[in-house]
Amino acid sequence: MNLLLLSNSTSDAGYLTHALPWVREWAAHHDTSGDALFVPYAGVTRTWDAYEALVAEALAPLGLRVRSVHQLADPVAAVQGARHVLVGGGNTFALLRSLRATGLLEAIGARVRSGEASYLGWSAGSNVACPTICTTNDMPIADPGGFDALGLVPVQINAHYTDAHPPGHRGETREQRLREFTTLNPGMPVLGLPEGTGLRVRGGRSQVLGAAGARRFHGNLAPQWLAEGPLESL
Amino acid sequence: MNLLLLSNSTSDAGYLTHALPWVREWAAHHDTSGDALFVPYAGVTRTWDAYEALVAEALAPLGLRVRSVHQLADPVAAVQGARHVLVGGGNTFALLRSLRATGLLEAIGARVRSGEASYLGWSAGSNVACPTICTTNDMPIADPGGFDALGLVPVQINAHYTDAHPPGHRGETREQRLREFTTLNPGMPVLGLPEGTGLRVRGGRSQVLGAAGARRFHGNLAPQWLAEGPLESL
Repeated sequence: MNLLLLSNSTSDAGYLTHALPWVREWAAHHDTSGDALFVPYAGVTRTWDAYEALVAEALAPLGLRVRSVHQLADPVAAVQGARHVLVGGGNTFALLRSLRATGLLEAIGARVRSGEASYLGWSAGSNVACPTICTTNDMPIADPGGFDALGLVPVQINAHYTDAHPPGHRGETREQRLREFTTLNPGMPVLGLPEGTGLRVRGGRSQVLGAAGARRFHGNLAPQWLAEGPLESL
Repeated sequence: MNLLLLSNSTSDAGYLTHALPWVREWAAHHDTSGDALFVPYAGVTRTWDAYEALVAEALAPLGLRVRSVHQLADPVAAVQGARHVLVGGGNTFALLRSLRATGLLEAIGARVRSGEASYLGWSAGSNVACPTICTTNDMPIADPGGFDALGLVPVQINAHYTDAHPPGHRGETREQRLREFTTLNPGMPVLGLPEGTGLRVRGGRSQVLGAAGARRFHGNLAPQWLAEGPLESL
């Protein structure tokens, strides 16, 4: 498998700009002459047309020709022939609901697992690459018909990971929320990916991308920071 | 119906301390000599025994005798005879899953709707009083088997409502998240309850409690602040 799972899309430099070198390296795994299929379903307050245009413009410097599945008569068939699948951020619940309803959940999973397509996700698109969406930060605005997701990696990702906590706020910190998850799911590790970071998986090798590293939670173990670079295992 | 739905439990003054005057007024609606049944299922990283003790101590000054349903052989029967039902905060998904699995979701809904029991919830306990849990801030660490909840009020509550946004954070603001909800659910209003506030419902009358007021979202309308005091309608 060839995966690039980013924490976030936006930065002061522009949409996906911070990640372009990583996306370039990821895309070169396959011939980039065909359509790069984009899944816009996580977009709720932007139109899917606008979302497609945003991503197409962001990735144009790499020579990727972005085409959104919402424009296609048969998205499943398109996935079955795709070399590059891009799944954008937004609301994870809305995304998973649509992936399930359209049959793309199964189609993307099979295609990417076979190695014939590469997978790029950011934010919600990284969440659905995990076994479940149980570590999303998003609001459950739509029932996704079950929390099981693509399961492309054997860990849960928490995107936009932060230790910050607004003064006076009495809600849970991110670490408290993730400890609730690891309490109920002691066998499943979680990678908290701060802004500007990502997880790169190529074949059996994985690495953390981005200077901020990643925060790993697992069962009752003390959380630990993983530095940018190769991981011994996921 | 007699409901008190709080945003939060903790404050510098102590557990539930800021809300004691409101709880006192709420409790006086019924004879307080029996057990006040406590539902601890939202607690994930604290034990239910410890949670019961915490709440019992907090409410002792009001003369409420707190008993947690996890101690009882037949929680449904206990609810069917209860005058006061307390549902504590923690993780909304874990709470709803257990409410559904134990039959308490139906039992509490019926008992409170009949007017024979009063309902006090805070944080997750306020979320489950709404039609669905679709406006919780919590992480979906457990599949609740559907998002439908008690439906005691015709609005969605967003507890711990805040405008704050940590600097550098690229995830959604709370307002963005709630606008995603109102985009998909234009007919359902949302009340954002800041820390230290609550919603009081008695019969057909409702009021916002707490100086910070409440933030109302509805469809495409501009969000508005509601001041502390009576509401014309929910």
